[in-house]
Amino acid sequence: MNEVSAQQIAHLISGRIVGDPNVKVSGPSKIDDSQEGTISFLANPKYESYIYDCLADIVLVSESFEPKKELNCTLIHVPNVYESLAVLMDTFGAKSKEDHFIASQACIHDTVQIGDNVHIEAFVNINRGSSVGADTRIYSNVSIGANVKIGSNTIIYPGVRIYDNCEIGNDVILHANVVIGADGFGFSRAEDGSYKKINHLGNVIIKDKVEIGANTTVDRGSIGSTVIGEGVKLDNLIQVAHNVEIGKNTVIAAQTGIAGSAKLGESNIIGGQVGIAGHKKIGNRIQVQAQTGIIGDIKDDARLSGSPAIEYANYYKSYAAFKNLPDLLVEIRKMKQKLAKLEDASPNL
Amino acid sequence: MNEVSAQQIAHLISGRIVGDPNVKVSGPSKIDDSQEGTISFLANPKYESYIYDCLADIVLVSESFEPKKELNCTLIHVPNVYESLAVLMDTFGAKSKEDHFIASQACIHDTVQIGDNVHIEAFVNINRGSSVGADTRIYSNVSIGANVKIGSNTIIYPGVRIYDNCEIGNDVILHANVVIGADGFGFSRAEDGSYKKINHLGNVIIKDKVEIGANTTVDRGSIGSTVIGEGVKLDNLIQVAHNVEIGKNTVIAAQTGIAGSAKLGESNIIGGQVGIAGHKKIGNRIQVQAQTGIIGDIKDDARLSGSPAIEYANYYKSYAAFKNLPDLLVEIRKMKQKLAKLEDASPNL
Amino acid sequence: MNEVSAQQIAHLISGRIVGDPNVKVSGPSKIDDSQEGTISFLANPKYESYIYDCLADIVLVSESFEPKKELNCTLIHVPNVYESLAVLMDTFGAKSKEDHFIASQACIHDTVQIGDNVHIEAFVNINRGSSVGADTRIYSNVSIGANVKIGSNTIIYPGVRIYDNCEIGNDVILHANVVIGADGFGFSRAEDGSYKKINHLGNVIIKDKVEIGANTTVDRGSIGSTVIGEGVKLDNLIQVAHNVEIGKNTVIAAQTGIAGSAKLGESNIIGGQVGIAGHKKIGNRIQVQAQTGIIGDIKDDARLSGSPAIEYANYYKSYAAFKNLPDLLVEIRKMKQKLAKLEDASPNL
Repeated sequence: MNEVSAQQIAHLISGRIVGDPNVKVSGPSKIDDSQEGTISFLANPKYESYIYDCLADIVLVSESFEPKKELNCTLIHVPNVYESLAVLMDTFGAKSKEDHFIASQACIHDTVQIGDNVHIEAFVNINRGSSVGADTRIYSNVSIGANVKIGSNTIIYPGVRIYDNCEIGNDVILHANVVIGADGFGFSRAEDGSYKKINHLGNVIIKDKVEIGANTTVDRGSIGSTVIGEGVKLDNLIQVAHNVEIGKNTVIAAQTGIAGSAKLGESNIIGGQVGIAGHKKIGNRIQVQAQTGIIGDIKDDARLSGSPAIEYANYYKSYAAFKNLPDLLVEIRKMKQKLAKLEDASPNL
Repeated sequence: MNEVSAQQIAHLISGRIVGDPNVKVSGPSKIDDSQEGTISFLANPKYESYIYDCLADIVLVSESFEPKKELNCTLIHVPNVYESLAVLMDTFGAKSKEDHFIASQACIHDTVQIGDNVHIEAFVNINRGSSVGADTRIYSNVSIGANVKIGSNTIIYPGVRIYDNCEIGNDVILHANVVIGADGFGFSRAEDGSYKKINHLGNVIIKDKVEIGANTTVDRGSIGSTVIGEGVKLDNLIQVAHNVEIGKNTVIAAQTGIAGSAKLGESNIIGGQVGIAGHKKIGNRIQVQAQTGIIGDIKDDARLSGSPAIEYANYYKSYAAFKNLPDLLVEIRKMKQKLAKLEDASPNL
Repeated sequence: MNEVSAQQIAHLISGRIVGDPNVKVSGPSKIDDSQEGTISFLANPKYESYIYDCLADIVLVSESFEPKKELNCTLIHVPNVYESLAVLMDTFGAKSKEDHFIASQACIHDTVQIGDNVHIEAFVNINRGSSVGADTRIYSNVSIGANVKIGSNTIIYPGVRIYDNCEIGNDVILHANVVIGADGFGFSRAEDGSYKKINHLGNVIIKDKVEIGANTTVDRGSIGSTVIGEGVKLDNLIQVAHNVEIGKNTVIAAQTGIAGSAKLGESNIIGGQVGIAGHKKIGNRIQVQAQTGIIGDIKDDARLSGSPAIEYANYYKSYAAFKNLPDLLVEIRKMKQKLAKLEDASPNL
């Protein structure tokens, strides 16, 4: 991250400076954990007290903010603190374009096509017939198989493994140790109880603007492709089995597992540690609580919880009753006793 | 995958050609997503409509299949479409034997023994005293510790880590980023609340014909071995703790975790995201639903679901009742009111 | 592991030898799976029968042990077998100090500072501005980003990935394929349903004496740090999201996931496959059963189970009732019939 001055920041986010316009910062910090040499922000008024002891050199504040005590920092007033912060984070996070090279210790097959401005660090291995698009960055210790197609402006972090014949789109981010294209878990059972491997001849296709978290695995199709749709975001340690399809702009939290040939629609929001059974058809815009287990097809707009999954609201009603089951049992026992007394006392039975 | 002609395929699977025997294909595709240059298959009659617009050059069909319209593809009639397809997938998936080399950028200690026809890619590190059997393939960026024994005809995909003293059998497949032999999770608690590491001096033994999925971890024994039995198949992202033993031909789906010293029998089928507690003894031929939690010993042939696990059929009955608990509460409230009325009305109480 | 004699061992643990003081062993084995060339131990009297066929050359026994038959092994009598065993396991596990080198095939930026006696194996990549403290060992194929600080006497196993600006303390152990500092899972939703990445400018701070299991992921903070406290022990395949803080001496079993900004106190014991929701505040000394789902703040000393989590004892009472729900339904149906009969028979209603 490079140093920028209050003046430069104010210009960038159309803010109004109160204090020293020449003070420089090199990154953000939180107002309740502020640090020297940074810019902090005060968006929620309940954190106001922190600003008076703040170590940050600049603080983003709302247009209307009026300090109640003396301040040691430069203020930049903006209409919307969060929006301006997001702009700043992009600025601080922007990598300078210069630092790209192809390391001499990379092992790249003669047949591999490399676009302009590609960055390849040491100990990257790329096998026969693969291609890497312009502006793509491949960090150290990455393994890329044969005939892999990688788009442009994509980032591949250290230790990613991409098996033969897979396709990665443009503007994709694969975090460290992601595995793309391992064989699916498919076997046929022999009469003696042993399992014979079914060859997996398909591949994985990852569309544009996908981000995949560290140590997540996406298996190749047995025949045909496992497809991760445009703009999909997968968190860490997720399992995506062979021939799964995940529709556009679906987001999935960590440690969720999707079994073979399940088809998920678009714009779904799926919590962590969820399981989805094989061959199920999942609609669009569904929302799934963490640890849910989906074992059937799911319609659009469902809200799910429980294992097996039911509607969220119903699950919570049932779970409230579950928590009271011991009390309910006591009550039912009492009712039974009363019933018995009534039966005994009834002259007509 | 190499190109093969309809004639060659028909010969291989004893099929009968209708159409051009010289057309060539290089892989399979699905009939509902067929592609040029491939062979497709029509096994399930409900997919028949797809064959009339099929892009595949060859389609495998049953002996009795009679097209209702004109076709653009060559047909090969066989008695059993699925069986012939499995044979073909083996054929297409077969790697040609020639492409093996030991990369000059591998770092192999002088004392390491390497069998015939071994393939070792770049950036593989093998430490002192290890051995690699004939015909074994080790892909790029693999780390093998000291005194590791690896059998013959085994495949080790990129990024696999094998710690010192572990043993890998013959015909084993370890997928990318698998970790074999990390220390088990064992500590003794000191009086000040800190934990002292217990040294793990055991190893991992992986028997013949085991396949282990991407990013799965198998910890070494503290004393003695963690043992993965012959023909066991583990899916991705599974945790196998120290001193676990898994019996022959057991298959386990993704993201399941087995805690320390649990002993599993043979031919078990265990779903994804299952947890098995430490030191438990699990029988043979059990079947476990996804997300189940096993906290006790389990007898042969059990069918389990729930957390803690109970018999599958019982779990589903209880869960059906759980879903209706809110209704049940309403009903019980009504019964209680009726009871109160009856009590009030009863002359004899 | 080096060979040591019975005499050396007896000296080390103040034991009394019965048998040959010159016999040598190179490691431990279990009494029920004893092996030649090892030292075994008899702590639990119910295993006594194994000692008479024992293949181990030395067996640790209690002061009072009297063999009932002839033995083939040398005995070492000690006051506390387990304590002496722990001392021995440290001895066998101790790495000799000599074997350190910096491999010529490592790629270390000129600006990197390396302390004394550091061991760096082949295919390690360390980027600009990072530092590695004395006596630290970095195994093969590790990737270390820019401006990473690594303390002294730390062990980094093969395939570990540490992103830019992260800090690793002293006496830390990171097992194979651990990923430290990948971007957190943070996006803002645009009007067209697509997600825009929020830059993650924070880092990860790992304090002294932490151990992290294979394939575990710890994401960097968005602003500020994700902090793993002193003495924390994390098992394999755990997910720790951005800005999480884990207090001192907390231990967490495999496959647990902690969502963004959750704050955990000290000395907690958390089982495997647990989920903890984002932004929750978890107290100290809590104990959590495997597969629990925590969705609210948790007070000190809680004992939790269930999803959502409730007190352990209550969960098990409710679950016992859950298992009997089908029977309960039958009973309630009977009660209803009786009630109906009573209502019919009641002259006063």
